[in-house]
Amino acid sequence: MKIEVEQDLFSKEAELAEINRAIFRERGLCALNLLAGPGAGKTSLIKAIAAMVDFPVAVIEGDPASQIDTDLLNSLGIPAFQINTEGGCHLEAEMVTRALAEFRPAPHSLLVIENVGNLICTAVYPLGEVLRVVMLGVSEGDDKPFKYPDIFQEADAVVLNKMDLAAHVDFDKNRFYDGVRRLSESVPVFELSCKSGEGLPEWTAWLTQRAAEYWTGA
Amino acid sequence: MKIEVEQDLFSKEAELAEINRAIFRERGLCALNLLAGPGAGKTSLIKAIAAMVDFPVAVIEGDPASQIDTDLLNSLGIPAFQINTEGGCHLEAEMVTRALAEFRPAPHSLLVIENVGNLICTAVYPLGEVLRVVMLGVSEGDDKPFKYPDIFQEADAVVLNKMDLAAHVDFDKNRFYDGVRRLSESVPVFELSCKSGEGLPEWTAWLTQRAAEYWTGA
Repeated sequence: MKIEVEQDLFSKEAELAEINRAIFRERGLCALNLLAGPGAGKTSLIKAIAAMVDFPVAVIEGDPASQIDTDLLNSLGIPAFQINTEGGCHLEAEMVTRALAEFRPAPHSLLVIENVGNLICTAVYPLGEVLRVVMLGVSEGDDKPFKYPDIFQEADAVVLNKMDLAAHVDFDKNRFYDGVRRLSESVPVFELSCKSGEGLPEWTAWLTQRAAEYWTGA
Repeated sequence: MKIEVEQDLFSKEAELAEINRAIFRERGLCALNLLAGPGAGKTSLIKAIAAMVDFPVAVIEGDPASQIDTDLLNSLGIPAFQINTEGGCHLEAEMVTRALAEFRPAPHSLLVIENVGNLICTAVYPLGEVLRVVMLGVSEGDDKPFKYPDIFQEADAVVLNKMDLAAHVDFDKNRFYDGVRRLSESVPVFELSCKSGEGLPEWTAWLTQRAAEYWTGA
């Protein structure tokens, strides 16, 4: 019985996500669902992307409360729109649909949807995105793919952030890659630091290529 | 309508938590609900507590998947019992009740319930605990009390871990304390590092006193 209810929920969520997918396509928005735990550096990554790519970047921010990141991004000239979930632990497609009624980024923008800081529930709610990126800081530990497999399993890319801290924390890279590869043989992993800038060129090159493929319909 | 459903849910959860509270009292277990995001250092804190206090420590581990931490703790002689939520984002009272049917720590143990790594949903499910402790690493950022107010609001103590990384990350302690104090004027905050050991004596002294108060019925 429980399984039936869940299947109903997820097929309804998949339908709602298709509404967003059509809006993204119509408006020429390449949507990226950015998934991570609290404090992995999602907003820092968005700032780095916006500074490095040659197409416009816009942001939908999901948080249980506050609009700290939205205010910060707007102050930097990066158009951002806040969704507060009022304690909810993930964004849902319908929240994004409502945001898109008000929020109209320039055509051919990369639209980063910064999901709520959560490695669990966010994994199972599709938002109609083209790209799904999971981000982790080395300070969060090498065991996360084993503990939170669902979110790594469906990722189009994994960003391993805070490499500048690698020398100061016990992060076993072999164990981390072993965990990721058990879930996906081919997902690209980008080791980088939003603080030092290392690894950002490789990551933005990948992102630029994937966005170009979307815009040209490849 | 939505509010009524939530109230029903939460009053049912509160009732189920009372069942655990009675079991804890009957068995002389001082239950601590340990709440944090992924990778804040919950298991490291448990190891530190067990090494420093003079009463037995037992652990219920909540994870979406794996029993990495349970195996580790048992290998160190700290009795631990795994609950896998199969993708669920928080522990619920009934899961703990079922665990307690099998798992029987020594009387007058501190029973640490290491909740699922999540700063959101875990806040609203009482487990019948005596103490509720929220833990954060400085590498997760100083803005967390503003973004995740619910979990800080109800805490009996806040542990600020990874102070050994403080010099390497941009963590504004004034901003963090400002955020915490807006939610609670009096909650104690323990700055410590499970890695370097700094701050652990003050934290375990507080914990020992609170556990003694519970066991003596003060």
